[in-house]
Order: sequence, then C-alpha cells, then structure tokens
Amino acid sequence: MSRLVMKFGGTSVADLDRIRSAAAHVKREVDAGHEVAVVVSAMAGKTNELVGWVRETSRLYDAREYDAVVGSGENVTAGLMALTLQEMGVPARSWQGWQVPVHTSSAHGAARIERIDTERLEAKFAEGMHAVIAGFQGISSEGRITTLGRGGSDTTAVAFAAALGAERCDIYTDVDGVYTTDPRITRKARKLGRISYEEMLELASLGAKVLQTRSVELAMRYKVRVQVRSSFGEEPGTLVCDEEEIVENRVVSGIAHTRDEAQITVAGVADRPGMAAALFGPLAASNINVDMIVQNVSAGGHTDMTFTVPHVDLARATDVLEKARSNGDVAFDALHVNEDVAKVSIVGIGMRSHAGVAHQMFQALAAENINIKAIATSEIKVSVLVDRKYLELAVQALHDAFGLEKAS
Amino acid sequence: MSRLVMKFGGTSVADLDRIRSAAAHVKREVDAGHEVAVVVSAMAGKTNELVGWVRETSRLYDAREYDAVVGSGENVTAGLMALTLQEMGVPARSWQGWQVPVHTSSAHGAARIERIDTERLEAKFAEGMHAVIAGFQGISSEGRITTLGRGGSDTTAVAFAAALGAERCDIYTDVDGVYTTDPRITRKARKLGRISYEEMLELASLGAKVLQTRSVELAMRYKVRVQVRSSFGEEPGTLVCDEEEIVENRVVSGIAHTRDEAQITVAGVADRPGMAAALFGPLAASNINVDMIVQNVSAGGHTDMTFTVPHVDLARATDVLEKARSNGDVAFDALHVNEDVAKVSIVGIGMRSHAGVAHQMFQALAAENINIKAIATSEIKVSVLVDRKYLELAVQALHDAFGLEKAS
Repeated sequence: MSRLVMKFGGTSVADLDRIRSAAAHVKREVDAGHEVAVVVSAMAGKTNELVGWVRETSRLYDAREYDAVVGSGENVTAGLMALTLQEMGVPARSWQGWQVPVHTSSAHGAARIERIDTERLEAKFAEGMHAVIAGFQGISSEGRITTLGRGGSDTTAVAFAAALGAERCDIYTDVDGVYTTDPRITRKARKLGRISYEEMLELASLGAKVLQTRSVELAMRYKVRVQVRSSFGEEPGTLVCDEEEIVENRVVSGIAHTRDEAQITVAGVADRPGMAAALFGPLAASNINVDMIVQNVSAGGHTDMTFTVPHVDLARATDVLEKARSNGDVAFDALHVNEDVAKVSIVGIGMRSHAGVAHQMFQALAAENINIKAIATSEIKVSVLVDRKYLELAVQALHDAFGLEKAS
Repeated sequence: MSRLVMKFGGTSVADLDRIRSAAAHVKREVDAGHEVAVVVSAMAGKTNELVGWVRETSRLYDAREYDAVVGSGENVTAGLMALTLQEMGVPARSWQGWQVPVHTSSAHGAARIERIDTERLEAKFAEGMHAVIAGFQGISSEGRITTLGRGGSDTTAVAFAAALGAERCDIYTDVDGVYTTDPRITRKARKLGRISYEEMLELASLGAKVLQTRSVELAMRYKVRVQVRSSFGEEPGTLVCDEEEIVENRVVSGIAHTRDEAQITVAGVADRPGMAAALFGPLAASNINVDMIVQNVSAGGHTDMTFTVPHVDLARATDVLEKARSNGDVAFDALHVNEDVAKVSIVGIGMRSHAGVAHQMFQALAAENINIKAIATSEIKVSVLVDRKYLELAVQALHDAFGLEKAS
C-alpha cells in the first residue's frame, strides 16, 4: 500500500468548514488506497495570537516557554481534523510532536528535526488507522516542546514523507501551484507541471512564498517528491522533484521578482586592499545580508561601492556604516540610498548547459530601454537590479523573451 | 523550605492583566520563602470554545480526540504564567500533564489521577525553579492526553499538594471564601474561617460551587489543607481542613439551597413489596439521581410516592416512568410534577453530637409558616423541600435560628 503525506496550512484549516474540505481531500486519497499521514498547521491567525500574547508578556521571553505556548495551536487542529475524518468514516488518530515523537535540536523557536521515531505510527497504520500530525513542533532531548520556526509545518510534512517512505508529499495551500512568474504581473504566466528542487530553492529564496526554503532543502536531500496544490480544487498542482524526472527541455523555468531590496552606494571609498572587508565586516557582524555588489572603476585612488540589502535592514545598515566611519574603521565621502529599486531574476537548471542566457536577458531588457543597475548570478540564476518602475515591464519582457507562456 | 500549591481558575487568568495579578500572588509567597507549584486553568471561555468546536465537528466524538483538543487551553496559560513569573524575577518552568507526568486512568473526559511522578519537578525545585502546571490534564497508560472533567484543575491542585507534601493548597477564585450561606440572600452571611472536609463535601454536593466535589474528597483522603481565597485581594479565605483543626464549637456551619430540583409525585401506586424497586429501578438504569423520597401512608392498598430529581433530568424521568407503566413494569394512576420547589439544607459536623437539631430546624420554619414537603437527612445534614417562594425566607430564618451571623 503506498503512503502519502498531505499537508494543510493555516488558511486551509481556518475554521471547521475548511477543515471539512481538507478532510474531503484526505478521504479521496484514502479511498484511492493510500495510507495517509496528514500534517496540519494552526488555524489561520491562531499562531499570531499566541505569539502576540508571549511578546506582550515578556519582551525578552524564554524561548522554551514561547514554544510551549505557540506550539499549542497545531494540537487543536490535529484533534479536530482527526474527529472530522472519523466522522467521514476514515479511522484516524492525532499525534502531537512529543507523542510521535519528533526529536529536534534544542534551538527553541527555530529547532531542526533530527529524527522521527515512526514505530508507533507504523503500529497504528498496521491497524488501519491514518495519522494526523500537529506540524511545526517536536521535542528536545530535555523533554521540552520545540517549534521549528515559521513555515515549519512544510518541513514537518517533508520530514515525515522521508521517514515514512511516502510516495509523495502534497502541500495543500491557497495557490494551485508554482507559476512561471507572478500571474498578477502577466496573464501569460503559466502553471508549471514540474520544477526541480534547485529551481524551487532559488525561487523560494527570491521571495516566492509557495514553500519554505528549509522544507525544499530537506526534500532535495531525501529525494522527497513534493506537490504544491490548491485546497480549493482537485486539479494536480506542481511537482517539485529531481531534475531527472523533468523531461521538458527548457532553459529558463521561472522569473522571480522582489521589491524587498534597497540599494546603498558608498561614495568616495579609498581604493586600497582590505577596503571591502572593512566595509562589509561590520554589516556581516550585524547579520545584514549584502547582495549584488558592484564596484566602480577606481579614479584618483577612490571608488564607489554599490550593493543591496533587504529593505527591512536598510536603516540598520546605514547606521552600522556611519558608526564604522565615525570610529575610523572605514573612510568614505557619502552614503546614497535608493529605495526605488527592484530585483528581477531568471531561474532555470537549463542555464548550466546553455551559454548566452545572461546575454539574452540583457538584450531583452535593453530592447525595452531598461537600465541594469547591478547584476548577480549563480549557476542556475541571473538577477538584475532595475528601477522599481520598470519591474512589471522587465518581467513581461523576459517572460516573452524566454517563451515561458508555451509549455515546452 | 515549605511548599505551597496555588491554583488559579479561568476567571483569575482570563487575560494577560489577570495573569499578572495572579503572578503577583505567587511572587508574594515565593518572597515569603515558599517553594511554589502553581496550577492554572485555561483562560475563561477558552475551554468552552474548544468543547464547542469538538461538538460541532462530531456529535458522537471520540473522547481521546476530545481530550487532545480540550486540554490545550491550559497549556497556553501555563506557558504565559511561567513567562510572567520570569518577568517578575521568579524562576519558573511550565509543565504539561505528560511532562510531569500525571498518570491517569483511561476514562477520557473524566479521568482519575492515579499517580504523579514528582522527580522531575523535585529536580527543578532543587535548582530554585518554581513550577507552573497545566491543570485538568494527564496522560493515560496508552500515552494519550486525558482530561479530568469540569473543575478538574481543583483536583489537579489538591493531587499535587498531596504528592509534593505541600503545607497547603490555596485555591484562588472569584469569591473570597466559604460563607455561612449565600450572601445574596442575607447580608448576615459570614465568611467562615475554617470548615471541615465533611461539611465542605456536603455543601459542594448541595450546589455550593466553590470547590469541585472530587477535589474535596481527595483533600480529605490525603489530609490536604485547602484554602479558598480571592484572587482580587490579600485577605485570608476559608481553610478546608480536618475537623480536629477546628476549635469553634458550632452545631450548624452553613446553610445551602438549590433551585435545581423538581418534585415528582407518583399517585395511586399499588402498595406491595418490590413496588419501590420497580419504580426506582428504571430511573437508576437511566442514571437519574433520586433524592428526598416520601411515601404516604397506604390507603386501600394504594399509596402516593413523592421524590425529587435534578431539574435537568425531569423530562427524562417522567418519560422513563411513563414507559415503565406502558410496559407493564409498574402500575400507577398519575404523575404529578412540581417545579416550583427548592431544597434548603443545614450542614454541620456538630450535629453528630447534638440531638434535636432537626427539630430546631422544623420549629424555625414552622414559626414562619413554611410548609415542609419532604425531608432528607445524613449524619451531618438535614435537607427540606419547600415551595420555591419560601426559599429566601427559609434561609434567613434558619441563619438566625442557628446564630450563624456571630462567629462562635
């Protein structure tokens, strides 16, 4: 009998009606002959309520007590889902993290799953009892409840799929799959049938909120086939899988964009060895991720250095640099900030074997008179920084240029 | 170092402000040198919300899943209370039932505490860490979460006081103690300094909602001194203790009343052996508690039988009797129902050694022209059934007759 993990996020279990709809998906798969492990999040809004209470109680809260409070939302949904399934004639039993148990590290609030003991679940499967698992949580070696951090239920689902040897891990969510680009920007955006782990990872780290980065890493490591699909319909979604499973021969799979970056230009930096280290050292020490670094050609022993930082870190970043200057750690003339920028990226495993992809990208942007302010590349990704007003135009031009509206 | 268990009910932890007030009581006792185990209920309304969800999901719900859902309210309060205490500088750690663990029977929804393993708590006490315990819950031998039934947090508190050898178990609630009678009926009602377990048990079973009957039974068995006191002040409350600790020499300690009973008269029953069994057998089989039975003198081989049942069971009781009649199991002429009745009871361990207490009660009622419709007695209690309109008058007359306004 084949196994399936089915994960439902907060909006898919937001109230009793939604839980019933989700349970109907489970019943369909059970009727089709699967042994199912259902992973559920807390009802939408519940985790935020609990987090709010903890923060209001204690500014520098004890992370162990944070986890004890915040993990409770999933327990409610797990019990209600088990009851709903029973009501539909599907034998089911709920499992909290400590009951399975799901062993995690002791990094409360951001714990990592280390091992899942599946014996008790297996025993119940053998009795014909399907499992409903409270996502997002586990137990530390000290016997305290841990949580995996935001989006952790995706990770729970993938980890169970690996531990149970499931045929697939279906992530039911409020979108029906992974698209070639944001459908709000172009109606030519097309749902992908399949996407590789590597591409999904790049898209996730570029801000596509479909799957949590860590869950994709885990899926890639254990070769868990993950399907992203809608809770509100029965059409298949997008399968995230090994590239060997992908027969389509495409160079670019998707186009991502983000408005969440800001550009900083440090003008008039003395151009000498160790200058970059002196500049970026304090930023790294403050946990600020620097991206898309551009250094101008030096003139008169001085140069300009441009880079991007996440928008939320902008104020902190300029602060850190100004402090480094007043400490005498670095010397520069001025800081210029540009918040009206956007990053547009093309992602595709086909790039590895195709030369000239970046060139094709730049040409498409040039044809629309879009100026590129910075470039960053990885093995399967090219990102460019453009003025924010060109964001939609750039995405549409690239979507056309790489022929993404056509299933290849 | 002496130990104290402090229990806070739902209204005492209804929101973050209330939790802070409760925590201030705990800090006071910690500062006074006690090792404290705090037992908390769910925030007021939370348990009802969870129960509502379960009932809406499944009419004949699986009690194991009911417990998994309904027990989660206490976990939230326990974590928040631990955080609040830490914030006040009181080292504290939260404990869920399975973490202690609190071993219970497998009677989900109404489990009994069988054993509390205190080693982990003791180890934390030794480190100077006070305990916050989620009330109302435990773990079955199958590793499933159990709940103790309504009011179960009182029982949790008393059980921990016994297991930890606590000097006292303080139940913080929204009343400031146990009164000689309901202060809404007479302003002469007086807060009792002490009351014996036996008296408290009678009062609890007569509808005084101060303490859960089961928790008083447990306190009596393990000689746990229980103090009922207000969360909203610092005055001492009422100590529920062994009668040997009570030096006051009083005959009657309190007057209880309830409107929750209804009177049924079965008219024209054939007066023959086995008649009572035939009548009350079907009621017992339907789990209906019959109280205050009065049998008239037989006339012409027939008699009338009068008794009371809890008001909520009235419809079911008449149904059962009518069915028994149509089955031919019993024979009677008619059923008469009187819902306009009330039960008034005097309770006191002094009755054991004082003759004439019932007589004194009947005289006081007669002096007010209050007709007694039925009588029931136990070793330390006399109850009478009266027309409901006389309830307040009866209570006031008895309060005066036994001199309860004066501390004896």
